[in-house]
Amino acid sequence: MIIGIIGLGTVGFGTVDILTKEKERLEKEIGEDVIVKYGCALENPGLPEGIIYTDDFKEVLNDPEVDVVVELIGGLTFAKTIILSALESGKHVVTANKALIAHHGQELFEAARKNNVNIFYEASVGGGIPVVVPAKESLIANNIKKIEGILNGTTNFILSLMETDNLDFSEALRIAKNLGYVEADESLDLDGYDAAHKIAILAMNAFHIFFDFDLINTTGIRSVTKVDMDFAKKLGYRIKLIAQAKKLEDSIGIDVSPTLVPMTDIVGNVMDAYNVVEITNDYVENVLFYGKGAGRYVTASAVVADIMKTHNKELWTHDYTYTDKITPIDVSKYYIHTSEPIEIDYEESYTDKGEYIYITNEISIHDVEDAIKGKDYALFKVRD
Amino acid sequence: MIIGIIGLGTVGFGTVDILTKEKERLEKEIGEDVIVKYGCALENPGLPEGIIYTDDFKEVLNDPEVDVVVELIGGLTFAKTIILSALESGKHVVTANKALIAHHGQELFEAARKNNVNIFYEASVGGGIPVVVPAKESLIANNIKKIEGILNGTTNFILSLMETDNLDFSEALRIAKNLGYVEADESLDLDGYDAAHKIAILAMNAFHIFFDFDLINTTGIRSVTKVDMDFAKKLGYRIKLIAQAKKLEDSIGIDVSPTLVPMTDIVGNVMDAYNVVEITNDYVENVLFYGKGAGRYVTASAVVADIMKTHNKELWTHDYTYTDKITPIDVSKYYIHTSEPIEIDYEESYTDKGEYIYITNEISIHDVEDAIKGKDYALFKVRD
Repeated sequence: MIIGIIGLGTVGFGTVDILTKEKERLEKEIGEDVIVKYGCALENPGLPEGIIYTDDFKEVLNDPEVDVVVELIGGLTFAKTIILSALESGKHVVTANKALIAHHGQELFEAARKNNVNIFYEASVGGGIPVVVPAKESLIANNIKKIEGILNGTTNFILSLMETDNLDFSEALRIAKNLGYVEADESLDLDGYDAAHKIAILAMNAFHIFFDFDLINTTGIRSVTKVDMDFAKKLGYRIKLIAQAKKLEDSIGIDVSPTLVPMTDIVGNVMDAYNVVEITNDYVENVLFYGKGAGRYVTASAVVADIMKTHNKELWTHDYTYTDKITPIDVSKYYIHTSEPIEIDYEESYTDKGEYIYITNEISIHDVEDAIKGKDYALFKVRD
Repeated sequence: MIIGIIGLGTVGFGTVDILTKEKERLEKEIGEDVIVKYGCALENPGLPEGIIYTDDFKEVLNDPEVDVVVELIGGLTFAKTIILSALESGKHVVTANKALIAHHGQELFEAARKNNVNIFYEASVGGGIPVVVPAKESLIANNIKKIEGILNGTTNFILSLMETDNLDFSEALRIAKNLGYVEADESLDLDGYDAAHKIAILAMNAFHIFFDFDLINTTGIRSVTKVDMDFAKKLGYRIKLIAQAKKLEDSIGIDVSPTLVPMTDIVGNVMDAYNVVEITNDYVENVLFYGKGAGRYVTASAVVADIMKTHNKELWTHDYTYTDKITPIDVSKYYIHTSEPIEIDYEESYTDKGEYIYITNEISIHDVEDAIKGKDYALFKVRD
């Protein structure tokens, strides 16, 4: 196979590096030559000899020898043009672009299908953790019921740091920024949009649907305080940014929100920049995938696996139905923290110097809103 | 595809059931008819209409219409004859037979390759958890360094029960037997051979080797007492039956043994009949797969995924090298419990009414043996 890599940043350069170092082994494994012909970026980061550097992506797209185009520039504009053009030229595409798949998956998948090529996007969810392919292929027997996960490493790092180093949100954020863990547009991480992109991709494949990404109810971690974290801990929980998608009676519920997770639960023990995805199925019950959610070689590992997968001529179908029935998940157990007692159906409560904490039974958000009307409160979901 | 299922016990009947109920969806997903033509067993368990019952496996093997033979009778004799005969007739094979792959993988893989068909065996490791396929395909970029896991649900159930219900080994074993959790040949579970079969299969694929199964150093859980479990807990550990395989300087180290795992570690929180596999890689670092290790539909889920995978015409290679350099892993941290003090390089020690507990630094088993010579002791590995 002849590969053109467009985008030579962290992950792009990591991909070139792995394909160079592991060339011989990979070729033996798949029984085909593995040749990186082009590296394309605005500047040459020092490509190994033998790889053509270009700053013009059209050179890659117009070369009939190229079988696989790897899009690693990100964003919704150029990336989309490049991918559509590659697919229309009959080239397979591999991408790590979660925002693009979340927003324009349907259009891209249809273009791939029309041109009898594949677009693979394992690296768009959970960094290097195998989850998109296993969910689509290894769990094929199952009707997936629910997906839950910690899908953003940056916010999980911040929440972990707040706990272990006893820091406020703003202090932990400053450290994460200094370490280069926070996206240039920090809202993507902190307000939950990055996690929402990823749960959208998993939900599409799990429930065989397309939908408008903006229908997803997204809350980030800016409202998580050290005080609530400490109360949660006292009751046996950690606060995690949980993305979830599940089949409801008449819709698919999808949301991203800070959620109390029991510390006895494996998901509650996922710390630092690690990600986890738990998939609840009818036949195989719950299956869980865990690993690092980001990093040069971590993510490049998934990109390389997808590139190798194009060797297999089998075409993926994304024969899904469009739906506008995407709703928030608003029946749940809740954590409520107020400064005065409230009337609520609760499982557990705790009072400390005028602070009232309730872990409710599974109730509707409307009942919660009625109970806290006019009061100061902090409110989070609680995972069962 | 036309399928013949040989063996209609728990997993075989579950497989028939899933293929019947999910037929339409699976056909749409892979774009091919999915027809179970034969169910073969000594007795008809009540096959759905339209499936031919036979007690003669030759009828299945001799039917040129059958594309995929699913071997679910287990054991090393008939199962091997059936699989080799199916492969030689140009039929794909799907099996859950861990003992057979562990002992005769090389011969079976070579027969598959010679006849241009596949033999898939996802269900042989970790029940329904996707791990064989993800390790071989999704982690293809990586040179795997180490695999560790809890691969036997029965012993994990017994160890969990000893802890949660404060029981002796023999009491917990009796309950597990009453629940039907223990294999007819109980030694397979209790002495670690079942876990050894599974780590052998993972090690083959991870390190691209074939080897004599009997070289694996296997210790089961019969020596785990409630007393040591309680000491371990006091020091922050749980005792788990850990199977591991790793690249050593001049060999591949493989063994199965009861091991102390920190309770802060995700692997230490895998309870009951759940399994977990952690794979440590060079590029993607550590990746972990978790789920139920057994059960009718749990395991059938993996069998069905493998059957669907035969639709893909890509042939798996198992182009591995035979080695006799399989050794125990005998440099480790150790837990030592004696009734008198010993001289040892330790990280942590604990004394209680004449009982001496040591958690050593990473040392050689020979140093341990020197120190405990002539003394009463309990000895387990400790996971880092």
